[in-house]
Amino acid sequence: MNMEKLLKPKAMAIVGANEKRGSFGNYSAINALQNRESVKVYFVNAKSERVLGKQTYKSLSELPEVPDCVMLVTPKSSIPGLLREAGELGVGAAIIVAAGYSEEGTEEGRRDEREIVEIARRYDMAVMGPNCTGYVNNVDKIKMWGMGGTEFDMGSRSTGIAFFSQSGTMAIHALSCNYVDISYVFSLGNSVVLTMEDAMAYAVEDPHVYMLCLYLEGVRNGRRFMDILNRARELGKPVVIHASGMSAKGAIAAASHTGNLASSRAVYEAVCEKYGVVLVESIDEFLCAANVLGTWRNKLPAGGNVAAVNGSGGENAVCADLGEMYGVPMPDLQPETIERLKRVLPEFASPKNPLDMTAITSDTDTVCVETLTALGEDPNVDAIIFTIAQFNEPNEKDRQQAEVFGESLNERYARPCIKYEQLEGSVPVMVIPQVEDRRDYEWRMKLKAAGVPILATSLIGYKVLGKICRFLNYREEEHLRENAAPERALSGEVIRHTEAESRALLESAGVPFPRQAAVASKDGLAAAMEGLRFPLVMKISSPDIAHKTEAGGVKLNIRSAGEAEAAFDEIMESCARHLPSARLEGVLLQEMAPAGTEMIVGVTSDRQFGPMLLVGMGGVFTEVFKDTAMAACPVCREEAMHMIDSLKAARLLDGYRGSRPCDKGALAEIMVKVSRFAAGRRGTLKELDINPVIVYPQGEGAVAVDALVVEQE
Amino acid sequence: MNMEKLLKPKAMAIVGANEKRGSFGNYSAINALQNRESVKVYFVNAKSERVLGKQTYKSLSELPEVPDCVMLVTPKSSIPGLLREAGELGVGAAIIVAAGYSEEGTEEGRRDEREIVEIARRYDMAVMGPNCTGYVNNVDKIKMWGMGGTEFDMGSRSTGIAFFSQSGTMAIHALSCNYVDISYVFSLGNSVVLTMEDAMAYAVEDPHVYMLCLYLEGVRNGRRFMDILNRARELGKPVVIHASGMSAKGAIAAASHTGNLASSRAVYEAVCEKYGVVLVESIDEFLCAANVLGTWRNKLPAGGNVAAVNGSGGENAVCADLGEMYGVPMPDLQPETIERLKRVLPEFASPKNPLDMTAITSDTDTVCVETLTALGEDPNVDAIIFTIAQFNEPNEKDRQQAEVFGESLNERYARPCIKYEQLEGSVPVMVIPQVEDRRDYEWRMKLKAAGVPILATSLIGYKVLGKICRFLNYREEEHLRENAAPERALSGEVIRHTEAESRALLESAGVPFPRQAAVASKDGLAAAMEGLRFPLVMKISSPDIAHKTEAGGVKLNIRSAGEAEAAFDEIMESCARHLPSARLEGVLLQEMAPAGTEMIVGVTSDRQFGPMLLVGMGGVFTEVFKDTAMAACPVCREEAMHMIDSLKAARLLDGYRGSRPCDKGALAEIMVKVSRFAAGRRGTLKELDINPVIVYPQGEGAVAVDALVVEQE
Repeated sequence: MNMEKLLKPKAMAIVGANEKRGSFGNYSAINALQNRESVKVYFVNAKSERVLGKQTYKSLSELPEVPDCVMLVTPKSSIPGLLREAGELGVGAAIIVAAGYSEEGTEEGRRDEREIVEIARRYDMAVMGPNCTGYVNNVDKIKMWGMGGTEFDMGSRSTGIAFFSQSGTMAIHALSCNYVDISYVFSLGNSVVLTMEDAMAYAVEDPHVYMLCLYLEGVRNGRRFMDILNRARELGKPVVIHASGMSAKGAIAAASHTGNLASSRAVYEAVCEKYGVVLVESIDEFLCAANVLGTWRNKLPAGGNVAAVNGSGGENAVCADLGEMYGVPMPDLQPETIERLKRVLPEFASPKNPLDMTAITSDTDTVCVETLTALGEDPNVDAIIFTIAQFNEPNEKDRQQAEVFGESLNERYARPCIKYEQLEGSVPVMVIPQVEDRRDYEWRMKLKAAGVPILATSLIGYKVLGKICRFLNYREEEHLRENAAPERALSGEVIRHTEAESRALLESAGVPFPRQAAVASKDGLAAAMEGLRFPLVMKISSPDIAHKTEAGGVKLNIRSAGEAEAAFDEIMESCARHLPSARLEGVLLQEMAPAGTEMIVGVTSDRQFGPMLLVGMGGVFTEVFKDTAMAACPVCREEAMHMIDSLKAARLLDGYRGSRPCDKGALAEIMVKVSRFAAGRRGTLKELDINPVIVYPQGEGAVAVDALVVEQE
Repeated sequence: MNMEKLLKPKAMAIVGANEKRGSFGNYSAINALQNRESVKVYFVNAKSERVLGKQTYKSLSELPEVPDCVMLVTPKSSIPGLLREAGELGVGAAIIVAAGYSEEGTEEGRRDEREIVEIARRYDMAVMGPNCTGYVNNVDKIKMWGMGGTEFDMGSRSTGIAFFSQSGTMAIHALSCNYVDISYVFSLGNSVVLTMEDAMAYAVEDPHVYMLCLYLEGVRNGRRFMDILNRARELGKPVVIHASGMSAKGAIAAASHTGNLASSRAVYEAVCEKYGVVLVESIDEFLCAANVLGTWRNKLPAGGNVAAVNGSGGENAVCADLGEMYGVPMPDLQPETIERLKRVLPEFASPKNPLDMTAITSDTDTVCVETLTALGEDPNVDAIIFTIAQFNEPNEKDRQQAEVFGESLNERYARPCIKYEQLEGSVPVMVIPQVEDRRDYEWRMKLKAAGVPILATSLIGYKVLGKICRFLNYREEEHLRENAAPERALSGEVIRHTEAESRALLESAGVPFPRQAAVASKDGLAAAMEGLRFPLVMKISSPDIAHKTEAGGVKLNIRSAGEAEAAFDEIMESCARHLPSARLEGVLLQEMAPAGTEMIVGVTSDRQFGPMLLVGMGGVFTEVFKDTAMAACPVCREEAMHMIDSLKAARLLDGYRGSRPCDKGALAEIMVKVSRFAAGRRGTLKELDINPVIVYPQGEGAVAVDALVVEQE
């Protein structure tokens, strides 16, 4: 599969180019005509002599040369024939726009899709789609794109972001924001040959790409996907993901759209957390994040602690509320900073973070510069967010009225960027408009050129800012970026290990359990008890007895050798009576774990991203209150501690109402070991549960009690 | 205080009118010149002969007539003198723009503010401010407004919303959205004479006002405020509140802005829930809600169940996700509706709610009309939400390109409204843009004229839609709109009632407690036990022993007359030993409540809105997991049940893992009685706690066990 043939064709053909307004074939033809001149464009249409003034050919075979890439904008029924014809000619790549394949959920759809895959494999063609819109390569100024919405000036638009979309419409939204720099846009459709991961792997290495942005309904190859996220981090290229289909109804909608099966929101969050990916849930947030990170390019602030500057008391109160709601870290200012600000600002301003600069923001340049400089020089501040009012209609009348009121809108709004340039340090300024952004292109570009990103308005702006701050505060040393997604999905026979097997498996991985000894006969009891501490638990050993308690095969709280001997007899007698045919191989003696705080540590295997580690407090806390944390396996100690601390129940672990703090470190240690075990068995592990892990006070450790491991061949 | 003198002056004066661009005095003068001609406008300025080409006067006393209202745009120090001069002349109203009063938090600021109040009272003047921006009365086309941002066409702008703002900037944002119909805008500042409640009480009765919108940092008179919310509901006028200052930092910011003390978010939510008010947390949501409800005017949909129509699979998946996230009720479609849609839509569309109409939305009018009609006639659907793509720049180039692609943007976007008119029924259509709204004024107005509201984009649009659906689904019969805010804030000495007193108070309010009997001497035990059921609890009665358990004054689980006699002796002996001086008045015998599900019912008194009822499951569920519900007292049974069902712990009450469902009705009954008790004592009740209320299985009731009532004189 040759990506260059697809993305950098020397010659291309649009099969089905036509003049019917609004049709895919018409859009494709119009777009192709905007390509850079060195690319040869051919139109194939059996019914018209000319399309958009250009000569057409009756078939691919009649073209004067073999194109590198063909775009098939013809009905579904014609696709296999055209694809074979292209393959026979030696065409290296094809784009299939037609829909009606696996996304239909019918056997027919799946069969037709398999046929495409077979033809593509036979001729080694890079095939995009079906059910896709094509791509835009703005690095080389080439469009093979079947819809409208790409009417930007190919000559002047800057490069930067590679955008991968499982929806043509979402791709168009990204393209239509002309202030967002685009290197590539891929509308991938059903991705049966060329997958999103293929496109990502290609683009992440391209020096014209400084950032990856995805609209995602599902991932085909989770393992490769995570490798690319890791590679992006190595290269310092931010990734923003707008994931959909995470709700119950959304998952159904996504499946019937591109046939993708979405993971749950918690799984996406876990994967994004590990790789420091910005995860959003709407196109507005997506474009905002892309624009902010895109404006900064490779010059990111050192961290995510911001000082906020507002021009009115109302703005300041709202800023404080939304900042808190969306987790924007706004550190207290240093005393020296407060003193500097007091000297600069009017008497009635009270310097705090967030800061109400009062209406003076719009009046005095000097004050503004001095304020921003003082904030920027505060050692706790990594970036400054500057609230701007914004008028509604960017029409002539508004501009005239702005003149009357002594304000040139553009000049006023461009001020922060001027200030930014005047700042000594490198603390960047962002602006956040209060109300709907009027998107004056020149204004945007002026700020952008100065490295000043414009956030979306109020609520969305602060929501995205919270996520960006989190991204900026990502510390590589606190994350284990090791990929444990399986090479292929689990599908074979399910094996539920017995309690003893499960314990043995986890013990070998270093998970601590209460000590135990197997005893074949009553004579062996005394020797076995030597290494154990009372109280003990005695359980029947029998390959034939599944429900030990029902068979009378379990005795708790054995406190002496005498009690142990009596228990042995009772168990043997009871089990023999309960199931006379059972082979009784003796008993298992275990130390009874003392009472402590009971937690659950578990692993579930996500279809796409492999084993996910879970932790929660047992019982209703997990089941009813859903107070659990999840991370992609394996985890390091920092990740495990972060999971524990993110629980609401953490307050109970930290010592609640006079109880001693729990040994969170010991719990974290167990989580690390379980996660390593799960990662090592990624190809077979289906499910793992340790319920409970009993956690003791600080310094006294934690111990796993009951364990269950389920594998799949 | 005469509101007409303030809002409908026949003559007005701007004291401090000047020509310095950007100054309050300049803005006020410019705005005043835009008033309708019949209003006489005078400028007062001691230093200039003319301002903006108009003759000035040296002082108020020199004016040829006494104005009804004066706007004081002069330094703070001049205010008392000018206000007195105006009062002496018989001026009925004044607006004070100067800041530096109680919002400063200084004694000087408070003193100067009191002086204003005294002068206003002496001359019975309606005084707005200080620290305010004035008002705009678009019904009578009068502006007394000290800032920019009101440059709309006073002649043509429609009336509708009364907007009350504790921030001038937020008021400007509302005004600058020229598609929002405005009757009045009030920037109220510190509200020391004319309060927001005064302005609201006036406006709610005005027939030109069909809706109230508030930017709120705090309420001065909670009781009156709730009365007005109730009045608005009686009149069918929706209320939208953007409340700020609800976070820790936000509360500080609000206090130093207008000196307001904010209630917590939970209290605002409780008050808004009771009166069916739409509560939002950002200006974007605020304008969106105002616009949607404003466009509908008095023709609201019958309920809040919506069908969503999207034009692409990606949009549909996102719509499902955001709809679920923000609680937009999207009912399943009736089988007949699905059949109708199957006949209309292309084969590959699968009719569901939300519905992916596929790209056909933009191509075929007929299909679109038939789809909307089928959805509108589904008996479960109250309204339709129609997703539209939206291009970015409404500039000439885009328009030309739109022509090339066969789409006239305005015509395309106006389609839903045409369809709406063609619909037989009265199911309204809303449109929601996917990406940033380009706010083409004509397009907006075309849709608006057809009664089609335009929501904000994606995330904010769905968030607001969720709130509007909740508003539309408000049922008057499910709420007790009775006002229990106190006439004045509690301030006197705190009285902590004893357990016995607390119980007596609540018993008289009808709250069930376990039966009990007071016993003065051992001889009385037998008679007392006749009316009680074992097991019993015995407690010392002594006005001198506060900590009964420590004194050995409590015995639990007494199961016979013999045990009771022994317990009596032990208690008397132990207490006498513990505190020899204590007066021992005998013991209290109580039935021991059997074990059950332990809940907490409590009341806290909010400074602004009075007693708030709380319910939660006891212990860590309330304290650590914060799983509580709140409502403004008094509540009806439906409100109490709604509170219980809104708890996460509700799953435990409904029968969890085989346990029998609890008697939620009996718990609700106790909550209703407690809330009535609290409402009746609104002038003194500070705090009330019943911990626990033990709830038994369905049909077996609930009982209060320990109670504490705290009052304040």
